[in-house]
Amino acid sequence: MNILDDINHLLPVAGISLATAAANICYAERTDLTLIELAPDSTTSAVFTQNAFCAAPVTVAKQHLNQASPRYLLVNAGNANAGTGQAGIDAAKACCESVAAELGCDANQVLPFSTGVIGENLPVDKIQQVIPDLKIDLNPHHWMSAAKAIMTTDTVPKGVSCQVSIANQIVTITGIAKGVGMIRPDMATMLAYITTDAKVEKTLLDDCMKESVAQSLNRITVDGDTSTNDACVLVATGQSKVAISELNLKEFQQALNKVFETLAKALVRDGEGATKLITINVTEAQNTNESDRVAYTVAHSPLVKTAFFASDPNWGRILAAVGRAGIKDLNINTLKIFIGDICIVENGARSASYSEELGQKVMNETEITIHIQLNRGQANSQIWTCDFSYDYVKINAEYRS
Amino acid sequence: MNILDDINHLLPVAGISLATAAANICYAERTDLTLIELAPDSTTSAVFTQNAFCAAPVTVAKQHLNQASPRYLLVNAGNANAGTGQAGIDAAKACCESVAAELGCDANQVLPFSTGVIGENLPVDKIQQVIPDLKIDLNPHHWMSAAKAIMTTDTVPKGVSCQVSIANQIVTITGIAKGVGMIRPDMATMLAYITTDAKVEKTLLDDCMKESVAQSLNRITVDGDTSTNDACVLVATGQSKVAISELNLKEFQQALNKVFETLAKALVRDGEGATKLITINVTEAQNTNESDRVAYTVAHSPLVKTAFFASDPNWGRILAAVGRAGIKDLNINTLKIFIGDICIVENGARSASYSEELGQKVMNETEITIHIQLNRGQANSQIWTCDFSYDYVKINAEYRS
Repeated sequence: MNILDDINHLLPVAGISLATAAANICYAERTDLTLIELAPDSTTSAVFTQNAFCAAPVTVAKQHLNQASPRYLLVNAGNANAGTGQAGIDAAKACCESVAAELGCDANQVLPFSTGVIGENLPVDKIQQVIPDLKIDLNPHHWMSAAKAIMTTDTVPKGVSCQVSIANQIVTITGIAKGVGMIRPDMATMLAYITTDAKVEKTLLDDCMKESVAQSLNRITVDGDTSTNDACVLVATGQSKVAISELNLKEFQQALNKVFETLAKALVRDGEGATKLITINVTEAQNTNESDRVAYTVAHSPLVKTAFFASDPNWGRILAAVGRAGIKDLNINTLKIFIGDICIVENGARSASYSEELGQKVMNETEITIHIQLNRGQANSQIWTCDFSYDYVKINAEYRS
Repeated sequence: MNILDDINHLLPVAGISLATAAANICYAERTDLTLIELAPDSTTSAVFTQNAFCAAPVTVAKQHLNQASPRYLLVNAGNANAGTGQAGIDAAKACCESVAAELGCDANQVLPFSTGVIGENLPVDKIQQVIPDLKIDLNPHHWMSAAKAIMTTDTVPKGVSCQVSIANQIVTITGIAKGVGMIRPDMATMLAYITTDAKVEKTLLDDCMKESVAQSLNRITVDGDTSTNDACVLVATGQSKVAISELNLKEFQQALNKVFETLAKALVRDGEGATKLITINVTEAQNTNESDRVAYTVAHSPLVKTAFFASDPNWGRILAAVGRAGIKDLNINTLKIFIGDICIVENGARSASYSEELGQKVMNETEITIHIQLNRGQANSQIWTCDFSYDYVKINAEYRS
């Protein structure tokens, strides 16, 4: 397996073309509208936010996905088209109809996606005006420009390619994603588009998606806030002629997992105001509900997050967060907490082998792993989060999401 | 009922004396040790943190409370004596023994309390050295100096007095509290000491405490982090000769509730970096579990909190938080959200009557109420929280808690 984690060299995927345009939806002088064309016979799997207030494009995309095989994904940045009631649904459908008319397909073969300010009406006219430009711009090499055009408060575009040899043939997977705040995906993710030229039947593709998302995009949190617009789409064009079956599923799934994990970590690394990528491993829990609970309690603790920002080996805050995670009969004398390889807590107190110097050395790194060993069972959880800085407050006090 | 919400004029309570000293535990040139003397025959009720990693003084105080009737409360600021294992227990007991020897009581009649840095050993010597000074300083009028000496990152001392006429006699209640970060009390609170000269039997006092805490200190959150050291103590000295019974319980409980609520709101108002006090009312839920869940999800959302800091009427973030609170079959078309008296969300979208100007006017206030009407049942929850500012990050990046 060959991972190309270089946004400047994303590999084209046979059967996929991309186009971008500046529709002036919210940002001046930047591209904010993206069209992704999927070859006929592609299979498409998608997961969406579980937020009860899901946005209009999420409702429409789910509906269209049930009705037909998608040919186009239309993504706008700068306006979430969420909290907009029936007018929002109508706006999303109008955009799909315009794409269908211009590109020659049915309106329900277009899936709409939006990200940006909640509660403002989508400027449909502005979007419709540039659809002819999108048609002209369609190109298999436009991954980088698409990764840029879907950004909101992101500071860098995120994308990754992977090539894997299956049955002596090369399968390519390329994906892009955006999202740095309101990030605590629940059964879905922020906007992410992953495509492959492998041939994968719809039900198998759904299974592959489910496994990859569960291990990656559903395992990250920036601020505990689940977006109204989260969506992740996985497309298999089949144009490499490599058919994925039970025989070669393992290699494909591994490559796919790696692509998803790389994108998920890229989102966290660019989390609003983030200066550090924190991996939280909770092991030896009685069940995954328990290990998840400890992991997310630590990951969402503003005190733990500000300590990481300050590179302060403040293990007391980690311990306090574990203690309030609501784990019944937690024995504080038998659990252990490590930062990096350094044991910081054992026997209910600071580890005898710990020194502030050892802790400080780990905390100065930009990628840090916390390991919490509960000593209660066999279940484990791994999640990724980031620190909490002045800039998180600045970005969210100034930006209207 | 007469509430005196003026820290400079706290009323003495017959049977209660207070003393402070500078033990140089962590802070230079300030008082950091407090002794509260309770008259013999006082009844005492206490609740403590539910954090699994409760601090050594919490363990010892619970033990002592079960063994004897308390005569002294010893409170140090600057060191939490938490995460200190058996050494921490020994240290807390040693301090109690010194107080007992100096003041003439049994060691288990002294309850220890600590607040400050987690994981550092308590400097027992420094504390023992100033216990004779505390004895000399004991005075019924030293409430204000005690309120100051228990502070950590608090910016103002917090205290309140209340006088209520019961059976034609005046009962006085005075309380002080501290705590501005790691604030999400669970069954207990940060450090709070409330005393009254009413005569209240122990079991009735426990009931009164339970009701007051449930409606006040257990209804606040600054950052969702539950401390390892939370403790709240309620003392009834009986020296007013007004005995509380079923006959006059209502007046007493109302006065007590008011004192607790005033202290709880004072903690939130001084929340780390806080610039606004936010009241969250969730009404018409199916049960209080549901209304609590919505209230705390909104209260802990970093995006909601930073919008309040920016005085930005960003109702989309409130809506997104309600939507991710995990309420089954939540109907977004029938719920309503108000800020102040202004309806901002109805029929699944921005209210037709809402304008940015109306929202902005409410958001510019320093005390704001959000009302979320779920339209599903009869259950209600009210909690208090604060906004999230640069200074929260600054305080917690610089301060070792």
